[in-house]
Amino acid sequence: MAPVITFLSDYGYADEFVGVCHGVIARICPQARVIDITHGLDRHAVQHAAVILRNALRFMPVGVHLAVVDPDVGAERRAVALGLGDERVLVGPDNGLLALAAADGGGVAQAIDIGRSRYRLEPVSATFHGRDLFAPVAAQLAAGAELAEAGDPIEPAELATLDLPQPTLGSEEIVAHVLALDRFGNLTLNVSHDELAEAALRLGRPLVVAAGGHSRAAHFAHTFADVAAGELLVYEDASRTLAVAVNRGSAAEQLSVTVGDELRLRPA
Amino acid sequence: MAPVITFLSDYGYADEFVGVCHGVIARICPQARVIDITHGLDRHAVQHAAVILRNALRFMPVGVHLAVVDPDVGAERRAVALGLGDERVLVGPDNGLLALAAADGGGVAQAIDIGRSRYRLEPVSATFHGRDLFAPVAAQLAAGAELAEAGDPIEPAELATLDLPQPTLGSEEIVAHVLALDRFGNLTLNVSHDELAEAALRLGRPLVVAAGGHSRAAHFAHTFADVAAGELLVYEDASRTLAVAVNRGSAAEQLSVTVGDELRLRPA
Amino acid sequence: MAPVITFLSDYGYADEFVGVCHGVIARICPQARVIDITHGLDRHAVQHAAVILRNALRFMPVGVHLAVVDPDVGAERRAVALGLGDERVLVGPDNGLLALAAADGGGVAQAIDIGRSRYRLEPVSATFHGRDLFAPVAAQLAAGAELAEAGDPIEPAELATLDLPQPTLGSEEIVAHVLALDRFGNLTLNVSHDELAEAALRLGRPLVVAAGGHSRAAHFAHTFADVAAGELLVYEDASRTLAVAVNRGSAAEQLSVTVGDELRLRPA
Repeated sequence: MAPVITFLSDYGYADEFVGVCHGVIARICPQARVIDITHGLDRHAVQHAAVILRNALRFMPVGVHLAVVDPDVGAERRAVALGLGDERVLVGPDNGLLALAAADGGGVAQAIDIGRSRYRLEPVSATFHGRDLFAPVAAQLAAGAELAEAGDPIEPAELATLDLPQPTLGSEEIVAHVLALDRFGNLTLNVSHDELAEAALRLGRPLVVAAGGHSRAAHFAHTFADVAAGELLVYEDASRTLAVAVNRGSAAEQLSVTVGDELRLRPA
Repeated sequence: MAPVITFLSDYGYADEFVGVCHGVIARICPQARVIDITHGLDRHAVQHAAVILRNALRFMPVGVHLAVVDPDVGAERRAVALGLGDERVLVGPDNGLLALAAADGGGVAQAIDIGRSRYRLEPVSATFHGRDLFAPVAAQLAAGAELAEAGDPIEPAELATLDLPQPTLGSEEIVAHVLALDRFGNLTLNVSHDELAEAALRLGRPLVVAAGGHSRAAHFAHTFADVAAGELLVYEDASRTLAVAVNRGSAAEQLSVTVGDELRLRPA
Repeated sequence: MAPVITFLSDYGYADEFVGVCHGVIARICPQARVIDITHGLDRHAVQHAAVILRNALRFMPVGVHLAVVDPDVGAERRAVALGLGDERVLVGPDNGLLALAAADGGGVAQAIDIGRSRYRLEPVSATFHGRDLFAPVAAQLAAGAELAEAGDPIEPAELATLDLPQPTLGSEEIVAHVLALDRFGNLTLNVSHDELAEAALRLGRPLVVAAGGHSRAAHFAHTFADVAAGELLVYEDASRTLAVAVNRGSAAEQLSVTVGDELRLRPA
């Protein structure tokens, strides 16, 4: 089977950045199948992208997984390729972007600093490491290069971590935070399926959702259609994570919240 | 030749939804070639998407055609796979989205309810059937699974239909409706090439286009460059359908209309 | 190896135009690998697109390079396929869009007018030559058709040219123009790496950047992180071209400039 490279970035679709990385990959590893996870993420939103990458990889073939959300390109942050316990290889900046996916994939078995990789395209620009560093390393690895050959070994313990806010799961109140939001304004909170099981929310129950001084009525429901158009629902989303949405509307707009903001949920 | 899957949705490009469906397909049918028709359609615009799907399939290789515009995901609407007279297979929600493409492809020869398909990804989420139901069924069919194995047979006559507004083609006036509009603000009307032949519009003739109480001068022309910049033209578009545009401008803005609105055309 | 077609346009992502061209290509040359450079360019921005095409092709495999930014579709402009000195083949409208890429690829060795090509899809629409003319010709060429068979030979000297504004590189002042801007608001100027070497800018030096009556302080720097957030930098970008940016901000917004505008740079 053709090797797989998945690709996630904040490069957007207005410019040629994504296409140029595809060209670089095709010249090095023409047999690779490249799957674009998304390039529409908010610029420089490392935490959001880390959540999306982790969730998406669960549905991707095992391969080389290229991710570039890199506010410090050209500065001192490290560039890395990581071999995981589940055989996946992650390639990207060492700024926390890869941390959740690495943990989810069995942890880092082998970490390589690729900043001076033999596989870089020379001259390496100061501002487009996707093209000159990350894509060529990913393509060489997909083409069969050994991970150890891609640069210099480092200790996995030295890798950047990502500190997500932690929820408080009380019997009277859940204090959670917005981990991600999609273009429909649906909010993913930092409460997992397992944590939710402990929190004793019950399907159909009325709730109050409070954010930034406002409070709104909601229902804990199975899906959008369980509440009327324009009404707020709290539900377990497709990543099995607690989420808040408005049926045929935008929870982000109705609650005036964005990534990182705190939400409080309690029985009505 | 590699099997073809085409994919149309309203998932947009800001999020990972499209990419995750590609990942699901690649794990089940890595040999498939996936052609994205578009994912930029307005959210929940079933009628518009149905028109786009029908028009686009005329230019696609025969294959499995996945379409997801699904405002009632998780509610009672059926999910289906349809074998057409021209050998194409359509996969999507049974909400009218597939109706025009099915009729255009020789009608439905075999209809299967895939809501409880053996090919679903478990656990099936309540909100992302593209990932958990439609994409895996499409991928299994592309990989060679029999349509009859994908679920339970239903009568084609039971499928949801799509009631488009009907034009009135008089000798003094054409009353038409906006079926679709593109990002340039060009308006596709519900008057086909054949209907147009009866309507006795003549190339070069001045017209009046009336919408919502306003009237504007236009010409029936061959292409944009036949009228001055900023002027309105009525023409037969690339789908051989009556259309209204502004050369280097937006007819949707100039006429303040959108999908579903009525337009009246008459000689000046 | 599979033949490569690259594809750049201003069709955008909201509609099915790009997907339909992919379908047309897949029916004619199913073995082709299609690399989308971008389809998000500003509508009808021929000069901007010509710069992007030239820069991107340097990173693409040699193949057939389809480009459609075509404000005069349906009017008298010529449609062409061009064989270059470096073996690439360009396909698109003859409106200057291909001129920079052609020069960069060793010049035009063979020019063919494809307006009446045998490879067109009939009936050819007046408004969607990407689908009916350019994509099918590109696909036939990728599938092995001879360039000479695609239409009628013309003299390369007859092709449309593109007149870019010229910079003035004085010892006291550089007068340059915005060639392109990306979605981050970074400005590419019309000063190349070699011209820059003559201009005696020195890394770290304070500068004044003047545009439209305003002046702002900047530094000539290596990369974004060399200046504070919100500050203006002048730098050599990833295309080795002089550029202006704001670290974690938008130079286009801060200077209120767009493609074609003049900028003046001088020592502070």
